[in-house]
Amino acid sequence: MTHFERKYKLALCQMPVSYDKDENLETASRYVSDAADAGAKLICLPEMWNTPYDSSKFREFSEPADGQSVEVLKDLAKRNEIFLVGGSIPELDGEEVYNTSFIFDPTGAQIARHRKVNMFEVNIEGGIRFREADTLSAGDGLTIVDTDFGKIGVAICFDVRFPEMFGEMKEAGAHLILLPAAFNMTTGPAHWDLLMRSRAMDNQLYFAACSAARDTKSAYISYAHSCIASPWGEYAGSIDSQAGIVYSTIDIDYINKIRAELPIGNPAL
Amino acid sequence: MTHFERKYKLALCQMPVSYDKDENLETASRYVSDAADAGAKLICLPEMWNTPYDSSKFREFSEPADGQSVEVLKDLAKRNEIFLVGGSIPELDGEEVYNTSFIFDPTGAQIARHRKVNMFEVNIEGGIRFREADTLSAGDGLTIVDTDFGKIGVAICFDVRFPEMFGEMKEAGAHLILLPAAFNMTTGPAHWDLLMRSRAMDNQLYFAACSAARDTKSAYISYAHSCIASPWGEYAGSIDSQAGIVYSTIDIDYINKIRAELPIGNPAL
Repeated sequence: MTHFERKYKLALCQMPVSYDKDENLETASRYVSDAADAGAKLICLPEMWNTPYDSSKFREFSEPADGQSVEVLKDLAKRNEIFLVGGSIPELDGEEVYNTSFIFDPTGAQIARHRKVNMFEVNIEGGIRFREADTLSAGDGLTIVDTDFGKIGVAICFDVRFPEMFGEMKEAGAHLILLPAAFNMTTGPAHWDLLMRSRAMDNQLYFAACSAARDTKSAYISYAHSCIASPWGEYAGSIDSQAGIVYSTIDIDYINKIRAELPIGNPAL
Repeated sequence: MTHFERKYKLALCQMPVSYDKDENLETASRYVSDAADAGAKLICLPEMWNTPYDSSKFREFSEPADGQSVEVLKDLAKRNEIFLVGGSIPELDGEEVYNTSFIFDPTGAQIARHRKVNMFEVNIEGGIRFREADTLSAGDGLTIVDTDFGKIGVAICFDVRFPEMFGEMKEAGAHLILLPAAFNMTTGPAHWDLLMRSRAMDNQLYFAACSAARDTKSAYISYAHSCIASPWGEYAGSIDSQAGIVYSTIDIDYINKIRAELPIGNPAL
């Protein structure tokens, strides 16, 4: 894994998440190890994988940047010799709680951190009501990470609503954007497919969203549907609502093929 | 029609287009009159409605800005007392041929003109090959038009691939974007639905694309599928490949409802 690989296996872990943190840590460990055993070199966990996606729980489940969950991620990356985008967890920094993705290389070194920039807010007549800003603080800035495969962008869930972010990641040379996310049963059926596929198509790169599995007994029911959209805007891999792992080959030369066939100003990678 | 109307009927004329210009002028006249009789106050024609979408014909069918086709459009707008976005025609200006949309108010006055900015180019393995820049010249600049209903944006076909244009139209206060367009049987099934619905969803406004009906004997087979996507990203009106007219009510207050329910930075109109 020391040379630049133009073709590699990506895995999204659509794991179940419960109200028991130890159980969540064990589940994540099992999913990441299974994905690594299946040959994945880059593995992603869902948004808020160590805690239920429940405003009333974020602070209780939050940890500092050197807490137990980050230690588990670090160890998983090192032990499995993989790049790991650690979904997101509620990160406690002073009095603030952020929705944060910690990112590791195969030596276990933390190589980046993304704090969700755009706080989720929705209040739909006859549908869902949720306001993240009541309990979480917003990060700022783009997160673009150098890996053995080239540059990848990382954003979290509601960030996907702001297409400029992904245009900037593309300009910076990203070939893949990973989005730990947790849509719901109102916006999921309406927009999930449209968002993930159009971001991939518009930027002519891979766009992958990783959600927790659906739990209909949860306070916030996840739409799930983790997926990897290709630079042509179709699914290279996807799953419905059940727990499981989505795999796809990420092929940088396929990006170049699409960019040459349909030229809209994006250079070859 | 002198006061600002927050709710009105839009019509897209998915008319058949032939290699006979007189026939095309007659067809357009019939479709526009039918749509006006049905109560439409804003009517749109397809891209290249007076000529086949055929590179070898654009110059032959081209006309200056005061030519016969523009006179027909002017007369149609005035006679039917409607706002008319005249799809597009090959416009001859000196030695250059542009892909141009002429736009009229209900008095027959030309109130705007859009020259397609982004020349269509595609060369897909096992699919379509086309290069507009071989025969057409590119325009520049956004086209935003004041109407009795508020501001609308106009762009043409391949322009849809460049999302920044529509972000700027939204910022300028457009509540509707009209896109005369002619996708093909490769990019149509892959991207048409995704593009039109995602532009509407991302900008939280109405986005309508008007194509000619499919003619399987034509050199360039149109995907057709004229549609009106709502600010929630679903179809408010659509048609398959056959000739016909798509109608929908455009409701500015519905835009405001969506922008309030899912706040992503767009002000009320």
